[in-house]
Amino acid sequence: MMSVSLTSKAAKLSLNEFLILPEVKPAREYIDGEIYQKPMPKGKHSRLQKRLIDAISEAGEKDKIACAFLELRCSFGVRSIVPDIVVFEWKNIPLDDRGEIKDEIAIAPDWTIEILSPDQSTTRVIDNILYCFQYQTQLGWLIDPKERSVLIFRPQQEPKLLERKEILPVLDIFKSWQLSANELFSWLSFT
Amino acid sequence: MMSVSLTSKAAKLSLNEFLILPEVKPAREYIDGEIYQKPMPKGKHSRLQKRLIDAISEAGEKDKIACAFLELRCSFGVRSIVPDIVVFEWKNIPLDDRGEIKDEIAIAPDWTIEILSPDQSTTRVIDNILYCFQYQTQLGWLIDPKERSVLIFRPQQEPKLLERKEILPVLDIFKSWQLSANELFSWLSFT
Repeated sequence: MMSVSLTSKAAKLSLNEFLILPEVKPAREYIDGEIYQKPMPKGKHSRLQKRLIDAISEAGEKDKIACAFLELRCSFGVRSIVPDIVVFEWKNIPLDDRGEIKDEIAIAPDWTIEILSPDQSTTRVIDNILYCFQYQTQLGWLIDPKERSVLIFRPQQEPKLLERKEILPVLDIFKSWQLSANELFSWLSFT
Repeated sequence: MMSVSLTSKAAKLSLNEFLILPEVKPAREYIDGEIYQKPMPKGKHSRLQKRLIDAISEAGEKDKIACAFLELRCSFGVRSIVPDIVVFEWKNIPLDDRGEIKDEIAIAPDWTIEILSPDQSTTRVIDNILYCFQYQTQLGWLIDPKERSVLIFRPQQEPKLLERKEILPVLDIFKSWQLSANELFSWLSFT
């Protein structure tokens, strides 16, 4: 997700100072006092992100099961992160007085999804997924388009690499929806 | 560890067929029927590998605690892998009738250590570490020289990213030996 640290040691911002900075594209993330900018998404990243959020929305929105958001800034603890996709169970969507989604999200998502970009630091992305597990996140996906594999993270468990026909675990609340690694990566094909 | 699959679908080798092939440099690994070649080690990889095996040997050999091996082929289950460093507790070193280390290692190491190379598939390397946990491996390190961080894997646990002053966990059998991430990466410096 992030590869460039933009922070100089002389002038570390607090999380609150970081949050009043204007948003830029690609999004910047605040991690333990450091600011990192996400890589500019490329073709495969963009396509998987779009098709996956469509699929999650299709499975989740009709029966008010869950809702997926693209590039939604979530600020909690000492980090402000912008996963490629976050999913909240319907009951956990942060709402304002009018029952609309809040603009500032101060909780961790139930499910965080990251899609690796070429030359991105995989260990930093993994660290952000693990950070979410300190804040009630139930599931993390790290999608590797190059390897056609998905690393699955769950709290207090070993990660698991899934590929080919293997079914990718989703939030338990999605009772019948299933997606295999093959199906996910088939979305890259235009022939 | 591996980025290039050398296998053609038409002619998949069995593990036994793979094991009688001549060794090449960099080493090839056999994973679920596919053959992958490790990347050629570059400067930082080479330096960390050398200094880390020296440090482990220094801490482990004198009191017959543990022994570290460089690029030792370990073949077990459906894979034949060559981690950058493997460590066996002294009592687990595979011996022949003469009390010498065997040439063919058919068990998993107690501790497996991988050092990321530029452009290497991190998810594949992680998958090899996780594979070891099915075979009694107790500890896995994934060293990321670029990020100056080490991802720590233990069976049935979330991985943990350690950096800076944090102490990197070693096998319990090393009672007093400690190494921080800072110390590890300080070995890269020649000034």
